[in-house]
Amino acid sequence: MNDTAFEKILDTMKDRELDAIVVSDPFSIDYMCGVLIHSGERMCVLAVRKDGEKRIFTSKLFYRQDPPVAMTFYDDTEDPTVSLAEFLALSRTAAADRSLPAAFLLPLMEKLPETSFVLADGIVEAVRQVKSEEELEKMREASRLNDLAMERLIPLVAKGLTEIELGEELLRIYRSLGADGFSFEPIIAFGKNASDPHHDSDSSVGRRGDCVVIDIGCQKDGYCSDMTRTVFIGEADGTSRRIYDIVFEANLKGIAAVRPGARFCDIDRAAREHIEKAGYGAYFTHRLGHSIGRQVHEWGDVSAANTNTVKEGMVFSIEPGIYLPGKVGVRIEDLVEVTSDGCRVLNSFTKEPIIVEEKDE
Amino acid sequence: MNDTAFEKILDTMKDRELDAIVVSDPFSIDYMCGVLIHSGERMCVLAVRKDGEKRIFTSKLFYRQDPPVAMTFYDDTEDPTVSLAEFLALSRTAAADRSLPAAFLLPLMEKLPETSFVLADGIVEAVRQVKSEEELEKMREASRLNDLAMERLIPLVAKGLTEIELGEELLRIYRSLGADGFSFEPIIAFGKNASDPHHDSDSSVGRRGDCVVIDIGCQKDGYCSDMTRTVFIGEADGTSRRIYDIVFEANLKGIAAVRPGARFCDIDRAAREHIEKAGYGAYFTHRLGHSIGRQVHEWGDVSAANTNTVKEGMVFSIEPGIYLPGKVGVRIEDLVEVTSDGCRVLNSFTKEPIIVEEKDE
Repeated sequence: MNDTAFEKILDTMKDRELDAIVVSDPFSIDYMCGVLIHSGERMCVLAVRKDGEKRIFTSKLFYRQDPPVAMTFYDDTEDPTVSLAEFLALSRTAAADRSLPAAFLLPLMEKLPETSFVLADGIVEAVRQVKSEEELEKMREASRLNDLAMERLIPLVAKGLTEIELGEELLRIYRSLGADGFSFEPIIAFGKNASDPHHDSDSSVGRRGDCVVIDIGCQKDGYCSDMTRTVFIGEADGTSRRIYDIVFEANLKGIAAVRPGARFCDIDRAAREHIEKAGYGAYFTHRLGHSIGRQVHEWGDVSAANTNTVKEGMVFSIEPGIYLPGKVGVRIEDLVEVTSDGCRVLNSFTKEPIIVEEKDE
Repeated sequence: MNDTAFEKILDTMKDRELDAIVVSDPFSIDYMCGVLIHSGERMCVLAVRKDGEKRIFTSKLFYRQDPPVAMTFYDDTEDPTVSLAEFLALSRTAAADRSLPAAFLLPLMEKLPETSFVLADGIVEAVRQVKSEEELEKMREASRLNDLAMERLIPLVAKGLTEIELGEELLRIYRSLGADGFSFEPIIAFGKNASDPHHDSDSSVGRRGDCVVIDIGCQKDGYCSDMTRTVFIGEADGTSRRIYDIVFEANLKGIAAVRPGARFCDIDRAAREHIEKAGYGAYFTHRLGHSIGRQVHEWGDVSAANTNTVKEGMVFSIEPGIYLPGKVGVRIEDLVEVTSDGCRVLNSFTKEPIIVEEKDE
């Protein structure tokens, strides 16, 4: 059990005058209690009261002998919010974390009409956001493997494989490197597919002149990596080269703005301003980055909306992109780890433009 | 767009005196509108008002030209619940579906203090639960492929492969059969691992005398299959044989109870009673089954808690099991499709006990 984390959370609860919090994110529960349960549509929550009492409520299917934290098990015929409501009964204000589904939140609110429910935005997440040295080691290793995988994958993009087949090759590469699997479904997008930042892999094959957005990540020892490179097959036209250079520079400007005390919104601004000045602001359609750790997307956006301050030990992505609908897309993404006076870039794979030679079969 | 489904939903809203519903399940949105968006931590909801107005609210990242339904797009710096709250402004009672996260539900409730929010349990889900002939065709095909995959997989369990490696083999088998991938991470559990109904595959290898729970499913054309067989390596001891026979009989009794007009709880009872009478009631720790379609677990439990009535065109699993902690587990699962006077079992793979011969290398 993570006593330090519980102490920090109880402090925040006191500051925010919360009598209880309900945590449903399985990785947050694991972080706090060392109990990882993926309960699917069944309820699994950790409830913490300001008096320090804590308890996990979950299905009998996930029974544990001698759990590190008190647990209540319900069966498939019981309403799982009954015992949870009893545990929270005296709370005037209770907070629910972001992922708690309406399926449990609304019945809970109905059983506790005197309790006012608020969003526990960032209570556990802010603690998880600052990684320990042990966590950082794992994240560096996951990114090192990701660099190696990128190096092996890039030569394959001009070999006539489809996006889906390249994804399958990537999984084999990760396994052979000792990674545990994907941290997310890879985005490997040829040509105009690359102009959709979240393209789902299909049976497209790369052709001469195509840009190829390669957004990939693996898991290693429970921690995630995430990196994007954009390469070109055979040749790159003038527009592609131009937007590549702009995105590359924006990536560097974002990284240069990372230091303890900077605000997330300022880092976003540093990169976005460069793209705006080059006239492509309307085509950079997403936030600059996201926090990462056990999950590939964790709480803590690098966006104009996040005025929180960066702290040493945080890890997040810097991933500017320009997407010209139906034509071309370029994104260049690194993970950075905040150090005492700046940041360490976790990816060392080159960001210089790469032209992949076509197969000559 | 699915006009019939919208009509049914508006009727239910009228019956339940709801002014609006908010649907967040991506497959429900796709079912209603033909727009499939996996928005991750970003909001994507379909809101429907009793006046028939409907609109999808999602991120710019998922922009669609000429969508079949009105859409509002927000960017990463906006609070996505603002426009949603405006759309719902005049509702006295609004319902949220089960999966709507607190991250959006609580800010929405805060913006609409006059609106009372309730759980939209089963409003869209009950419509999705009754499959069309076109959907049934796809589900039969997915289960046919699953039968073939089981046949190819079983001989491999005694070849010295680990649970994880068998999962990888299974993916290759599915691909070669033309399936689109897993419908869920397969459970392939040897010996005492099988006594955990939701065991995560690890590096265990099968040994003589082990039971092997094989719970697998593929996707085909967007629809899921799901089947479990339990086999034995080399030999099965007396206890294993005995519980196998009990579970097999419980599976048959469950299936025999399926017909239009039966209640889900009665079907659960028919199978559970047999296991209880044999003295193993305490070791059948989960519901008898679950509905299935686009998702492997859909709304509509086959459990003592569900007093709803079965209708023609529904598809669900019948999966009794007995789990002796730390020792052995047996589960036998089929999918059934409710017909006008009973049911069709979608799996034809044998349920007779199978002893897999060990490798002789």
